[in-house]
Amino acid sequence: MKPNKKLSLEPYKGTRDFYPKDQFVQNYIFGVWKKVAERYGYQEYNSSILEETDLYRAKTGEEIVNEQTYSFTDRGGRDVTIRPEMTPTVARMVAAKRRELTFPLRWFSIPNLWRYERPQRGRLREHWQLNCDIFGVDGIEADVEIISLAYDIMKEFGAKDKDFEIRIYNRKLLNYWAKVVGLNQEQASKITKVIDKKDKISTKDFYVRTEEILKEKTEEFIELMQSPKKFEERTNFFQKKEEGKLAWKEINLVFDKLESRGIKNIRLDAALVRGFDYYTGMVFEMYDVNPKNPRALFGGGRYDDLVGIFGVEKVSGVGFGWGDVTTKDFLETYKLLPEFKSSSQLYICHLDGYLDKANELASSLREQGANVEVDLTERKIQAQIKTADREDVPFVLVVGEEEVKSKRYKVKNLQTGKEEQTAEKDIYQLVKKNA
Amino acid sequence: MKPNKKLSLEPYKGTRDFYPKDQFVQNYIFGVWKKVAERYGYQEYNSSILEETDLYRAKTGEEIVNEQTYSFTDRGGRDVTIRPEMTPTVARMVAAKRRELTFPLRWFSIPNLWRYERPQRGRLREHWQLNCDIFGVDGIEADVEIISLAYDIMKEFGAKDKDFEIRIYNRKLLNYWAKVVGLNQEQASKITKVIDKKDKISTKDFYVRTEEILKEKTEEFIELMQSPKKFEERTNFFQKKEEGKLAWKEINLVFDKLESRGIKNIRLDAALVRGFDYYTGMVFEMYDVNPKNPRALFGGGRYDDLVGIFGVEKVSGVGFGWGDVTTKDFLETYKLLPEFKSSSQLYICHLDGYLDKANELASSLREQGANVEVDLTERKIQAQIKTADREDVPFVLVVGEEEVKSKRYKVKNLQTGKEEQTAEKDIYQLVKKNA
Repeated sequence: MKPNKKLSLEPYKGTRDFYPKDQFVQNYIFGVWKKVAERYGYQEYNSSILEETDLYRAKTGEEIVNEQTYSFTDRGGRDVTIRPEMTPTVARMVAAKRRELTFPLRWFSIPNLWRYERPQRGRLREHWQLNCDIFGVDGIEADVEIISLAYDIMKEFGAKDKDFEIRIYNRKLLNYWAKVVGLNQEQASKITKVIDKKDKISTKDFYVRTEEILKEKTEEFIELMQSPKKFEERTNFFQKKEEGKLAWKEINLVFDKLESRGIKNIRLDAALVRGFDYYTGMVFEMYDVNPKNPRALFGGGRYDDLVGIFGVEKVSGVGFGWGDVTTKDFLETYKLLPEFKSSSQLYICHLDGYLDKANELASSLREQGANVEVDLTERKIQAQIKTADREDVPFVLVVGEEEVKSKRYKVKNLQTGKEEQTAEKDIYQLVKKNA
Repeated sequence: MKPNKKLSLEPYKGTRDFYPKDQFVQNYIFGVWKKVAERYGYQEYNSSILEETDLYRAKTGEEIVNEQTYSFTDRGGRDVTIRPEMTPTVARMVAAKRRELTFPLRWFSIPNLWRYERPQRGRLREHWQLNCDIFGVDGIEADVEIISLAYDIMKEFGAKDKDFEIRIYNRKLLNYWAKVVGLNQEQASKITKVIDKKDKISTKDFYVRTEEILKEKTEEFIELMQSPKKFEERTNFFQKKEEGKLAWKEINLVFDKLESRGIKNIRLDAALVRGFDYYTGMVFEMYDVNPKNPRALFGGGRYDDLVGIFGVEKVSGVGFGWGDVTTKDFLETYKLLPEFKSSSQLYICHLDGYLDKANELASSLREQGANVEVDLTERKIQAQIKTADREDVPFVLVVGEEEVKSKRYKVKNLQTGKEEQTAEKDIYQLVKKNA
């Protein structure tokens, strides 16, 4: 093979290479996600990154399928899409084993997802996402648990209440508004998408787009969509009709229950609708209060009709997706990322002719449970030790004639510089204790 | 949304849904892989599942790119491919940071990979693969370590030496043959692919395909490619020329060093070539000896020219890929898979009106470190307990008036049926101890 200078050294646009130090951060984030999800009894699942495109046509929403998916035809003529989100997949899996599964069901997964977009802060073409879902609980208790779980993840990351905010709304209230204002279904669906973009476009743009859809009803609708304060004053108005009352009751219950759990950084957000068509009840998003990170850390809601769309008996569901990109931005902003720590505990160097002995020692230490690297080169000792240091391996030792004879080694802590004469049989304890 | 009976409930052809019990098996396999790789000091990395197609055109081999990849054009006109293997990506990453990285470098990753193929036993369209690589060690020591690492993984899985076999060969020897027989480069490349398919096609087919390429040289070549016994007899023949001698020396060193490490289930396999174009030295594969599982568990080799193809200074490399599908088949065949164990430790049921108290108790136990599920339904106690049992949660308790007052709970072990009166403050210890 000949050198080919045209070959790109970069990862594909909008994606990331995870060198060990980057992967360390990913593993930290995934580890916290998994730990807290399992604390709440969620079981891990996964599926393929490719699904037939029909799955998303049916459920994700037109804009995403038409403009933002990675869709193509496979060599056998099937239309397939790299998953842009996990909810359709999990709904398919639940529907497929509707009769065998035990409900309520708590599931989580950490899939990678794809959107064709202009890469920007907080938003890449490929990202990973924690998905947590409960199936088979109709009551608001499930919504409360899902939000509590997300809150506990923030606490596990070390976040302070004052640095993030959970915004909550209810699709039923939005649907009710639409009825009050007299919108047909198409208008209601279109206006949902415009509201979803509210924070990303100018106030004028928002007005213009709203007017395109609502015409003479624009003023009334926008008035209804004002800040939470005004919104609260309107409680009585919504209480009048059964449907508004139910939505309102759910919102109040969620607020009360979250507050009694000590979760107080929550607020009602009448502009929160979420981009997906499938939500049917409570919806919620979490934001960093720092304007540097304007994208939601997590978002989710209730989707009681999604499983039923597969032609099986309905199963209610509520869940969220939580992205790794915004999470890393948040943790960096608030200096909450842990320092890199190598998974290696000991680096073994060797004098000329002692490589086999170095390998033997490594084998024995590995059997005891240590993570041990052996320098396989024939470089000078100093060069070998330098490699250990640059790779952040905490301990180093050298194998030579004297050490092999005496079965005693100088084990050096590269962080403190401290060197300790150690019997072969005690190396593991030393390395383990200080690791 | 209306039910849509045409929506498929199946995962995309050749892929798998991982329900929690399947994911448990995946996590077990990934866990063993990761543990042993880290024992040897390998650091985890990852990258995007999409790469520009040029990357594979340059390195993976024509057949795979032309017939077996998932390639398409993105919405911006770029030709992209879902990675069919990880080696080109890792070589790209090493080349990109050639000057910053510390060599030797030990890296591992567990990517999912895609091939468009007819799904069959041991071979699916999507599979996961452990990839371990060392960069920057020119000597055979790296090859020996990589094979030892793979062997240790088999031991960690509980496999017995008699149940698997490591086959070893050297591309340099193949190249030398080709020279001895007088093949040009194109013939040599083509014949490599035919040899790679040897076990999958009939002896007659093999002869016919070989003859198409080699014409009158067929007999001589096939004779040279006979069983290891005959091969050994020819040692002297190969020793005659420098090039053959070097290849032969490497093979002998690898055998000696592996045997001195106690790895004896190895054999020379003159038909082992590996399908990729980029190998330059030792190649190896591991097989189940049970003919039910005819596909390699892992395969790899040395590729000293791969990083250099990006137009940077050469870095030698040796590594392997190890698939999850064949691994699971092997572990099932030899009954080495662990039994499913829920990550939940305790399921909390509640009498009417005690759900909030149940949630409080759960919160407190989670803070102590337990994985606790709360039944969020209003079903009868028996139905709640049945859910815990069907989900394989080991412990269950009920929250009611009496329990809340006395702060004592009957904690039932659902596996043994044993019930224990436990003070609230001791629940965590009980659940943890028995988990």
